[in-house]
Amino acid sequence: MIADNSVGVVAPQRFYSDVPLTLKSGAQLPGFELVFETYGTLNAARSNAVLVCHALSGNHHVAGIASDNPKNLGWWDNLVGPGKPLDTRKFFVVGVNNLGGCFGSTGPLSRNPETGKHYGADFPLVMVEDWVAAQARLADHLGIEAWAAVIGGSLGGMQALEWSLQFPERIRHAIAIASAPKLSAQNIAFNEIARQAILSDPDFHDGHYAEYGVVPERGLRLARMIGHITYLSDDQMNEKFGRQMRYDQHTYNYDVDFEIESYLRYQGDKFAGFFDANTYLMTTKTLDYFDPAYAYGGDLAAALVRVRADFLVVSFSTDWRFSPARSREIVFALLKNRRRVAYAEIDCVAGHDSFLLNDAHYHAVLRAYLENIAV
Amino acid sequence: MIADNSVGVVAPQRFYSDVPLTLKSGAQLPGFELVFETYGTLNAARSNAVLVCHALSGNHHVAGIASDNPKNLGWWDNLVGPGKPLDTRKFFVVGVNNLGGCFGSTGPLSRNPETGKHYGADFPLVMVEDWVAAQARLADHLGIEAWAAVIGGSLGGMQALEWSLQFPERIRHAIAIASAPKLSAQNIAFNEIARQAILSDPDFHDGHYAEYGVVPERGLRLARMIGHITYLSDDQMNEKFGRQMRYDQHTYNYDVDFEIESYLRYQGDKFAGFFDANTYLMTTKTLDYFDPAYAYGGDLAAALVRVRADFLVVSFSTDWRFSPARSREIVFALLKNRRRVAYAEIDCVAGHDSFLLNDAHYHAVLRAYLENIAV
Repeated sequence: MIADNSVGVVAPQRFYSDVPLTLKSGAQLPGFELVFETYGTLNAARSNAVLVCHALSGNHHVAGIASDNPKNLGWWDNLVGPGKPLDTRKFFVVGVNNLGGCFGSTGPLSRNPETGKHYGADFPLVMVEDWVAAQARLADHLGIEAWAAVIGGSLGGMQALEWSLQFPERIRHAIAIASAPKLSAQNIAFNEIARQAILSDPDFHDGHYAEYGVVPERGLRLARMIGHITYLSDDQMNEKFGRQMRYDQHTYNYDVDFEIESYLRYQGDKFAGFFDANTYLMTTKTLDYFDPAYAYGGDLAAALVRVRADFLVVSFSTDWRFSPARSREIVFALLKNRRRVAYAEIDCVAGHDSFLLNDAHYHAVLRAYLENIAV
Repeated sequence: MIADNSVGVVAPQRFYSDVPLTLKSGAQLPGFELVFETYGTLNAARSNAVLVCHALSGNHHVAGIASDNPKNLGWWDNLVGPGKPLDTRKFFVVGVNNLGGCFGSTGPLSRNPETGKHYGADFPLVMVEDWVAAQARLADHLGIEAWAAVIGGSLGGMQALEWSLQFPERIRHAIAIASAPKLSAQNIAFNEIARQAILSDPDFHDGHYAEYGVVPERGLRLARMIGHITYLSDDQMNEKFGRQMRYDQHTYNYDVDFEIESYLRYQGDKFAGFFDANTYLMTTKTLDYFDPAYAYGGDLAAALVRVRADFLVVSFSTDWRFSPARSREIVFALLKNRRRVAYAEIDCVAGHDSFLLNDAHYHAVLRAYLENIAV
């Protein structure tokens, strides 16, 4: 039975752009395909479209039940649906798998038309700026001149910010949740270790593992475990697992002693089973490189001069990956430019992952903000 | 030229115990050897001996210049020497490589007398309690009935605490720096990922890599990189590296872009070149299992009832591996037992690694405390 407030069963759609795309790196793609989903109905004025941008491991399946797998619920299903904070009775919501992704959009798993082989490591690195450029083509295709809002958490928030910079007239509201204007040294350090885990896996084969019929599972598994630590807060880990042991006694070997070990192994194994290593590598670089203030000598306010959108910025008290201080950097830079910006710092225990969860205060803030958007 | 306040050139000494040692796990060692160094002179009353306990990657070479390598300065040389806070004109200082270590004491790199082969993964897991039991035999050998002090940082502080529990009459002062009474779930999580990096390295060969003439360098390298993130504070990483780039432009590949990446790779490579993987694995378990309150239903104060030593507890404001809150747990449990305890929370930027550094306030606290110890 499908709940009343679910968008129901959803099938992915495809969009192909045959216009070459020059990437930030200088590399060029002759064309590309994006896989996407939509929920709700585009109104006659085409003024009610909301783009949901995914983070590192997300995809286009934002809400509802995947048509090919009834167990596959959208990653932001708690947010998007009829009567939910991002209400599909009001908004036409678009979820897209980003360029370079591994869920159907053109990326390292695709075949290079020139060689007939998987791109693998030959797929060019795609940056936040490129994602947004590709999303803009999808918007053109859907007849959306301007988004009512672009919303995303973490890396998704960076895309919302980038939309406000690259296409200031095509976005009315940017909603950046648990995000940051650029990574810190520690953020980069975690990404670098994840990359090294993948790059040093003997099954990586310089990124052409597909040609060898293998997957660098060891590396991907470690990369995900490392990431996972940064998604949870220390407090929540203690609340959820603490020093809870699997058995009454220590094993005195390297099997699971503590439940937290079991949890991490499970998360790592699961991820290694479905995510592409080249996409993972690329996306950590996408994160590392994002820094709109760089061309302005590090002055974020100067970088944001061209913003026209209103902003909602949300952070979580226990998020130590992108702490509230990082969100405040965005807020202050916007205020310096006399932009309209709402900011909420949500007190909660779940750390960075909170942006995916159903915290009442958090969802109330989103609901109120979205309700006030005129369409 | 050797500085006036250096202990000078130091050669390691060896102690062999032929009395079997039953470990906490139940395994038994028929005997064992410890490598150690001493600085200063044991006084006639044998009342001025200080044991320095090392942390995860440390060893017996605490101070001075190694006799076999003039570039090898002791890891706590800034603390130990004539006129330094741990003054060798007053104290007889002992540094020891712990049982199971990889710097000369009996451990996985040793040959099993029964098989003639390297122990490798067959070496039993050695816990903090076992380290202290082995150290007590060394104390017997040196004619030290009671230590004036046992001092250590991080895992070294856990040994100081354990001394006060296992041999309450043999330790007059315990100095626990940047330590914790047990690991948190997040601490265990970091250790588990380091273990998985080593265990999943194809060169690990179930811990018998020595028999194959290889070393699981990839795993060790990752393990060290992961550890390193937790040794530095986010603030210090930003101060030291920030987003400093290696080149003017992004590489758009997986070479070094940011200096932090170069630093981590360097630290990982260096470590993989000298540290033993089995010892690393074991020591992470030594950390994970340490929990003196466990047998008391988690009540640390109840566990510390038998403590007789005076305590100095030191923590560092930016240490997020073992935060000040963890040190305060020890302090409060001691106070509940009406033990004499001094506590200093040092405001500094360097994170967990601060215990190895020469912060003026920190060293002044140690100096004052050690000066007041009667010998």
